[in-house]
Amino acid sequence: MDVSHISFGRTLVVAPHPDDEVLGAGGTIAKLASEGEEVFVAVVTEGKPPAFDPATIARTQAEAREAHRALGVRETLWLRLPAAQLAETAHATVNSTLLDVVRRLSPRTVLVPFVGDMHMDHQLTFTSALVACRPHQTEYPKLILAYETLSETNWNAPYLSPGFLPNVFVDITEHLDVKVKAMQMFASQLREAPHERSIATLRALATLRGATVMRQAAEAFVLVRHVI
Amino acid sequence: MDVSHISFGRTLVVAPHPDDEVLGAGGTIAKLASEGEEVFVAVVTEGKPPAFDPATIARTQAEAREAHRALGVRETLWLRLPAAQLAETAHATVNSTLLDVVRRLSPRTVLVPFVGDMHMDHQLTFTSALVACRPHQTEYPKLILAYETLSETNWNAPYLSPGFLPNVFVDITEHLDVKVKAMQMFASQLREAPHERSIATLRALATLRGATVMRQAAEAFVLVRHVI
Amino acid sequence: MDVSHISFGRTLVVAPHPDDEVLGAGGTIAKLASEGEEVFVAVVTEGKPPAFDPATIARTQAEAREAHRALGVRETLWLRLPAAQLAETAHATVNSTLLDVVRRLSPRTVLVPFVGDMHMDHQLTFTSALVACRPHQTEYPKLILAYETLSETNWNAPYLSPGFLPNVFVDITEHLDVKVKAMQMFASQLREAPHERSIATLRALATLRGATVMRQAAEAFVLVRHVI
Amino acid sequence: MDVSHISFGRTLVVAPHPDDEVLGAGGTIAKLASEGEEVFVAVVTEGKPPAFDPATIARTQAEAREAHRALGVRETLWLRLPAAQLAETAHATVNSTLLDVVRRLSPRTVLVPFVGDMHMDHQLTFTSALVACRPHQTEYPKLILAYETLSETNWNAPYLSPGFLPNVFVDITEHLDVKVKAMQMFASQLREAPHERSIATLRALATLRGATVMRQAAEAFVLVRHVI
Amino acid sequence: MDVSHISFGRTLVVAPHPDDEVLGAGGTIAKLASEGEEVFVAVVTEGKPPAFDPATIARTQAEAREAHRALGVRETLWLRLPAAQLAETAHATVNSTLLDVVRRLSPRTVLVPFVGDMHMDHQLTFTSALVACRPHQTEYPKLILAYETLSETNWNAPYLSPGFLPNVFVDITEHLDVKVKAMQMFASQLREAPHERSIATLRALATLRGATVMRQAAEAFVLVRHVI
Amino acid sequence: MDVSHISFGRTLVVAPHPDDEVLGAGGTIAKLASEGEEVFVAVVTEGKPPAFDPATIARTQAEAREAHRALGVRETLWLRLPAAQLAETAHATVNSTLLDVVRRLSPRTVLVPFVGDMHMDHQLTFTSALVACRPHQTEYPKLILAYETLSETNWNAPYLSPGFLPNVFVDITEHLDVKVKAMQMFASQLREAPHERSIATLRALATLRGATVMRQAAEAFVLVRHVI
Repeated sequence: MDVSHISFGRTLVVAPHPDDEVLGAGGTIAKLASEGEEVFVAVVTEGKPPAFDPATIARTQAEAREAHRALGVRETLWLRLPAAQLAETAHATVNSTLLDVVRRLSPRTVLVPFVGDMHMDHQLTFTSALVACRPHQTEYPKLILAYETLSETNWNAPYLSPGFLPNVFVDITEHLDVKVKAMQMFASQLREAPHERSIATLRALATLRGATVMRQAAEAFVLVRHVI
Repeated sequence: MDVSHISFGRTLVVAPHPDDEVLGAGGTIAKLASEGEEVFVAVVTEGKPPAFDPATIARTQAEAREAHRALGVRETLWLRLPAAQLAETAHATVNSTLLDVVRRLSPRTVLVPFVGDMHMDHQLTFTSALVACRPHQTEYPKLILAYETLSETNWNAPYLSPGFLPNVFVDITEHLDVKVKAMQMFASQLREAPHERSIATLRALATLRGATVMRQAAEAFVLVRHVI
Repeated sequence: MDVSHISFGRTLVVAPHPDDEVLGAGGTIAKLASEGEEVFVAVVTEGKPPAFDPATIARTQAEAREAHRALGVRETLWLRLPAAQLAETAHATVNSTLLDVVRRLSPRTVLVPFVGDMHMDHQLTFTSALVACRPHQTEYPKLILAYETLSETNWNAPYLSPGFLPNVFVDITEHLDVKVKAMQMFASQLREAPHERSIATLRALATLRGATVMRQAAEAFVLVRHVI
Repeated sequence: MDVSHISFGRTLVVAPHPDDEVLGAGGTIAKLASEGEEVFVAVVTEGKPPAFDPATIARTQAEAREAHRALGVRETLWLRLPAAQLAETAHATVNSTLLDVVRRLSPRTVLVPFVGDMHMDHQLTFTSALVACRPHQTEYPKLILAYETLSETNWNAPYLSPGFLPNVFVDITEHLDVKVKAMQMFASQLREAPHERSIATLRALATLRGATVMRQAAEAFVLVRHVI
Repeated sequence: MDVSHISFGRTLVVAPHPDDEVLGAGGTIAKLASEGEEVFVAVVTEGKPPAFDPATIARTQAEAREAHRALGVRETLWLRLPAAQLAETAHATVNSTLLDVVRRLSPRTVLVPFVGDMHMDHQLTFTSALVACRPHQTEYPKLILAYETLSETNWNAPYLSPGFLPNVFVDITEHLDVKVKAMQMFASQLREAPHERSIATLRALATLRGATVMRQAAEAFVLVRHVI
Repeated sequence: MDVSHISFGRTLVVAPHPDDEVLGAGGTIAKLASEGEEVFVAVVTEGKPPAFDPATIARTQAEAREAHRALGVRETLWLRLPAAQLAETAHATVNSTLLDVVRRLSPRTVLVPFVGDMHMDHQLTFTSALVACRPHQTEYPKLILAYETLSETNWNAPYLSPGFLPNVFVDITEHLDVKVKAMQMFASQLREAPHERSIATLRALATLRGATVMRQAAEAFVLVRHVI
């Protein structure tokens, strides 16, 4: 045979907050779902009153459900740790919450936020996801990729926090439209251009990441571990 | 006073090959020129027969002259070192060639290609430009910035070659159109999308770099040195 | 015009503990003030009993007030988070405390401690200051610089914690004396040479940072972000 | 004289959990003890009910005592901070706990876990150990080395967390057998090959680290600081 | 489907000198060949008289042919650039030599030596291989992996040259024996333990890389680029 | 015994150009010599006409001889490769030139310039010195340290070239005066303050490096390899 091929198998996308998974991996989710893979999204945190009001929380979760349906997500798991407070949550609790998900689903592939993101919830989700994926039993996730999140990844400190330098590119030419549609469902999270969390920026990023590998649109990742 | 302001003063843009200066800093050149700064472009190499045929060389240089005129470049310096052969040129020769330019022009600001670019001509131009800008006399360039070049900067090895993580952003909202026009004059160097060296990618990069700092369009740089 | 120039505009210096701002940026503060810029210092923490006794706290704050007056600081803001306990303070609280200051002052330039410093209060102040300076609205600080602090920056782990490799140098030849004077007012924090927090070391650092850019004395910074 | 020589003097090995000190530095401990140096082990944490049951805790500590005796450890210090909860323990408490040990023992050499290890207890132990070893008085530890721990060091994120790239190698050819014996005493912590925490892997690591410097067996470290 | 899978497709292994491909990727070559993939080896350099004598050159090449046959290599390409002299060979020549091979074979996967290896031939082979694999046409290699070479990768300068921190692991449990056998055929290149280029070290490395991912034996790589 | 101690044994200092060894390690040389160690200096390059005139070359070498005598150097080896042309000298030639020196002297400790220095002669000397010190035989240098050179180390590109972050400090309190005296003998290389290559800067660096480890004066190094 003279072609290369990779199938991700059952895939878990870990999102610190709803919309991170769409910004970072919406096209890849849609592509995997269209190929018949089971894709799960675990939303790690939930806004808690009084910092977040119940109506906003409900609205964001409704948007997420709609967006996930559009992308073909099989199931959304709500882990309900407190948003913007992972640094105050016991580290062992975040670890075990994610470990439970990994044990229940036995995913072959896990997509995580980037450790260099500005938001501490992203950094701690990355760290605990790695603990949950430790290769210390026969079965464990074989492919771990970190995605980039507009309005988080580019706003940290160049050369002082870990830099996002992608080495994995997923062609999403056929799936960019559904990604955009899914993001538009997150009306509460979208901003007007030139904000990073706008549709124009999302399209520009897809164009740039695609062009790097001679494709119309791509999502880019940093590889954490791949066991073959 | 409660506003910040920076003026670059006389500016030298060092381009390993014609078009690098437009891809990396065309909008900034146009902005500086529109503000009355004197901007010079030094084109370090020239294709040499038989690897490059004379008609192509002449055509590229004509394109460069036209593009530079559009951007408001005051003077283009042709240093005529052999293209794709800087690694075979004596290092002292590249150093002294650039040193002569810096001595002649006494620029306050110098824009250089990025040391992590894939092309060895870019790497060596960066290195020699730094030698030429050494702060060992009272007068020397006070601001040195490295620009990114589509089809060079993104194609090197993530985490193994120096990564481009920009910390300086120049708002080129008012100058993106002239940058695009200047790049279109480089018909011999342009490619069709989704190639990195296409107008679509150039626009996407400007949108992304702009959005990072809440602007419609920007060019991004890595700071090498700023003396205040 | 053939000179470069930069004005910082209204400037906020963020100090985890009193004296960090003098050690790291005292000369720059004096220089800016002498040029007519408004410079504010935000002291993030305050020693709390019983770890710190009230007399010591009062004395240190009195020293700070005197030193700031000498440097020309327009106003000192006391944020009163608990010293040596930022790691135990809710991350959202540190973020919002700094965000309030940034909103109130709308500084154009912000000087922050270095993320690689040994003291966790420095690391967390850096992180929260960046959150407070996010470029997600039209107005935000355009220039963010990290300063070095003798007895913090050099004592962390080489190559394992972020390294301080300065790329911005401010000539403080005319302001070194007032910096030394201001530091001498911090009698409670000064140590005898060869301790890092001594006048002899402070002078040696100014000489070394100056010599790197051919000046009698300089303060050195790492650029976090500059929007032009 | 034409030979080089180094003696470590009184040595403190800091272990986040019992067995880290054997995995990372068991051979070096045995070597130093055999040369007449006083070696102390400080075990930073202790499992606490209900997460850990008392029988397991007692058993692990008994194993540690036996292993330390085999290696020639002069004294084991039990610091009894809560295991897997250092991130929830006040940072100042971890600092002062380690500072007390350093003050009491005045070690010349301190061996610490690696800051890039996956377990947050390792990261925080490293950080606090460095605070405890600050060179701000005439006497302080002159040599600080970070050791690698199988099942921690290799499982973090390549290029995103600090990487273990050893620059110090201790020949343990004569001491590998006692290291293996000591590790076998940790029956509760050992796993079957191909787990990282197995005797086979421990031997393979010793062979590889040794071969890098043309020795039958070695332990490898990253230097933090050496004052001569 | 709930399993992940990757096939490499036609694979090119680029070896600066004969035996690098066996040390770094011999097990992976055997595994791919056993799965029916076409694997090619390109040996970049050849010893030239008088630095190398003809008998030695002939012997090494004979050993390589035998080893490649054992591993199931479909064809060995001898590029015959001068060994230990790539730094004196025109960079454009190394580029075009490798480009010709990539064009002729159209591999989907390319394995290259590591850019941080001590030998400059390895560094320059890496650099030129990346130029040859640029993604600027529709077809190009989709997967590029850098392998480690005992007696090269571990001997460079920690933290100063690029560090080998593997993120891709190929299980070679079923293929370690044939890798060892192939290496034994390179009698001229093998050394006695504890030299790095010995069978004992090769086995220890396979055990360690395997244990990191809970396998009996593995080869480890750093990902350069993967396009999916 | 409760003290740590290190003796360097026979020591080789590799200097790309005369005066680098004094700037970077003059105090350490004097200290070692005073302790009875044999210290050798290998000067790698020599200015060649017409770039350098014979009188200047002779004068610099005379200065070096005088300075080495003052420091207690046992023997100076003149390797006479062409100055500012190491990049044009066959890499194998630089390797073998340094290998010959290492074989002849069998040093236990080797001090080398820093790979991140701006001058390519420094970078290539570092690289070839490492090749010459490969640990592939029973005997090889056990300790390799890289020194910093004023006017080279600080002038390269922060975060883009390897950064000098010292982890080894040698107390030269008793030897700073002779270092200064030796440097003053290099009248042809000295510059007036505030140039980096001035006595004032040399003293400031010694003070700063000393203060980091609570000593009056120190020289700082980055460890490359230490085998114990």
